[in-house]
Amino acid sequence: MEKILNALVLTPEQRQQFLDAAPGAEQLFVRDATITPEDLAGVTVMLGNPSVEALRQGGQSLRWMHTRSAGADQYLENGVLSEQTRLSSSVGAYGLSVSEHLFAMLLAIMKRLPQYRDNQAKALWQRVGTARTLQGAQVLVGGAGDIGSSFALLCKAMGAKTLGIRRNIHQPVPGIDSLHTLAELDDLLPQCDVVALVFPRSQETDNLMTYERILRMKPDAILLNGGRGTAVDCAGLAQAMAEGHLYGAGLDVTEPEPLPAGHPLWKEPRVLITPHVAGGNSLDITAVKIADIALENLKHYLAGEPLNNLLK
Amino acid sequence: MEKILNALVLTPEQRQQFLDAAPGAEQLFVRDATITPEDLAGVTVMLGNPSVEALRQGGQSLRWMHTRSAGADQYLENGVLSEQTRLSSSVGAYGLSVSEHLFAMLLAIMKRLPQYRDNQAKALWQRVGTARTLQGAQVLVGGAGDIGSSFALLCKAMGAKTLGIRRNIHQPVPGIDSLHTLAELDDLLPQCDVVALVFPRSQETDNLMTYERILRMKPDAILLNGGRGTAVDCAGLAQAMAEGHLYGAGLDVTEPEPLPAGHPLWKEPRVLITPHVAGGNSLDITAVKIADIALENLKHYLAGEPLNNLLK
Repeated sequence: MEKILNALVLTPEQRQQFLDAAPGAEQLFVRDATITPEDLAGVTVMLGNPSVEALRQGGQSLRWMHTRSAGADQYLENGVLSEQTRLSSSVGAYGLSVSEHLFAMLLAIMKRLPQYRDNQAKALWQRVGTARTLQGAQVLVGGAGDIGSSFALLCKAMGAKTLGIRRNIHQPVPGIDSLHTLAELDDLLPQCDVVALVFPRSQETDNLMTYERILRMKPDAILLNGGRGTAVDCAGLAQAMAEGHLYGAGLDVTEPEPLPAGHPLWKEPRVLITPHVAGGNSLDITAVKIADIALENLKHYLAGEPLNNLLK
Repeated sequence: MEKILNALVLTPEQRQQFLDAAPGAEQLFVRDATITPEDLAGVTVMLGNPSVEALRQGGQSLRWMHTRSAGADQYLENGVLSEQTRLSSSVGAYGLSVSEHLFAMLLAIMKRLPQYRDNQAKALWQRVGTARTLQGAQVLVGGAGDIGSSFALLCKAMGAKTLGIRRNIHQPVPGIDSLHTLAELDDLLPQCDVVALVFPRSQETDNLMTYERILRMKPDAILLNGGRGTAVDCAGLAQAMAEGHLYGAGLDVTEPEPLPAGHPLWKEPRVLITPHVAGGNSLDITAVKIADIALENLKHYLAGEPLNNLLK
C-alpha cells in the first residue's frame, strides 16, 4: 500500500482532490518544516520539500518525490535520495510570479525608483537623472524555459528585442526572437542592454557571470538574476559596480543566501536586492498551479503512467 | 516680420530644421530659464516655457506661443497672455515617458519593492509579504488621452481589464476596454484594483480624490497620480493611508510641489514618491517628439493653417 506524505499548501477543496485521487492509499497532510526522519518511515510518496537531512536519514522507502519548488538541485546530491527514488518538480508553476517580479525590478531600475526611494527617506524632492526604456532595447534571457519565456513576452510588450539562451535551440520559445547556446554568451554580452538570468542550477551556470564577464556587458547595461544565486559572482559584481560599470543590477537570489550583512552589494545604490521572494507563494495563482501539477503527477504515478517534470 | 524665440532643447540638426522652416523670420535660440521680459520685446512667436512673470511683463507682442510641456494651465491664467495670443502645447510627446514611469511605479508597489529597498538600507534579508499581479485586475485610467492610452496598453499586456474616464466617451481609445464620464467616478471606484490619474489640470479634476473618495476605493487598491498634483488631496491621502486604507500609492506629482519636507506622505512606507520626473526629458525620445510637434506647428503657423494642440 502506498503511504503518501503531502506537504503542499492546499485549500480544503484541493486536499479533498488529493484524497479522491488516491483512494487506496494512506495520505497524511503535514508541513515541510516539521518533517522528521521518523515521519518519513514507510513513506512511498513525498509531495513537498522536506529537509535534505530528514531525507538522508529517513527517506529510504521513498519511490517518488515531487517538489513544490521549480528547482530541486539539492535533492540530486549524492546520498539524499536512494537510487530507486524518482524525483519530479513543480517547474511551470512559477513563470508568472518570477517573471513579473524580475520585470518589476527591471522597470524600477530603468526609472531609477530605488534611488528615488532613498531620497524619499530624506524627504528630498530632487531629480536623479534621465531614465531608460525597453523600446528598442536588446534583452538577453539566460534560461529560456517557462520563466524566461514569460519574462521575454513582457519585455516584448514594451518594445524590446529578445535573445534567449537554452540547451535546445531548435524548438521555438514564445517571446524569444532568437535562440542561442551558452557557448555564444561571450559574444552576446556586448550587444545587450539587459541580461536577465533565470537558469536552474547546473555546473555550466555556476559562477557564470564573473567579474570579467560583467565587464563584457555594455557599461550602461542592466543585470538581473532570478534563477540561482550561484550564477553570479557577487563579489565580482560588487567590484565591477564600484568601478562604475553597469547602469544597475537587480538580484532576487544571491550566493550565499541570505546575503551577509557586511556584503558591499547591500550598500551599492545601483543594486536592488529582494530576498528570494520572486517565486515562493508570492502570488495566490502559484499555489494553485503547484497543486494542479502535483495532482496530475500523482494520478500518473498511481496509474503507472510516465511522470511530468522528471529530474531523476 | 516674424520674430521667433526658440527655447526648445534641440540638436544642431533640429535647430537647422527650425531655421529652414522660417527663412524670412528672425529666430533666436535661448534657454527657458534665462528669458527676461526684455528678451520678449517684439517677439511674435515663442517656442518653449518662459516664466509666467516674464510673459506678464514682456509678452504683449506675442501672436502665438507653443509649450514644450503637455499641460500649459499656468499660461491660461488671467493676464499672462494677451487676448490675441494663441497657445498650443506639446501634448502627445509624453505618452511613452509618463506611462512607462507610472507603470514602473505600479509594478514596484505590487511587488513591494519600495519596502524591500527600505530593508536593503538595513542589510535586512526578510520577506515582506505576498505580492499582487495585474492578471485579472481592473484598472481605472482617469484621463484617457495620449498618456492614459499608453498606460492602459501596458496594463492590458499584463492581463488587466481597463476602464477609462474622459470627456468624449464616443470615440474608442486604444487600450481602454470601456469609456466612462467623470460623473460615474463614485460608482467605478469601489470596483477597481488600480486607479491611475493622468488628468490635465481643470476645475473638475482639482481636488478630485478627497479623503472620502479614497475611502470609496477597495481597501487593498492602489492609487497613482502622474497628471497634476491638484487632482489628489495629499492630506486626505495621508490620513486614509495612516488608517490602513489602500495597498499602496505612487505619486509623481503632488500639491504643493515640492512636497514640503514635513509632509506625512514622505514617511508613509506604502507610498512611493518621485519628484515630477515622469515626463520632462527623462527619455531621449521625448525631446525628439517635442521638436517634431513644434516644428510641424511652426510650419502650420507660417502657412496660415490651423494649429495642432490649440488651447486658446
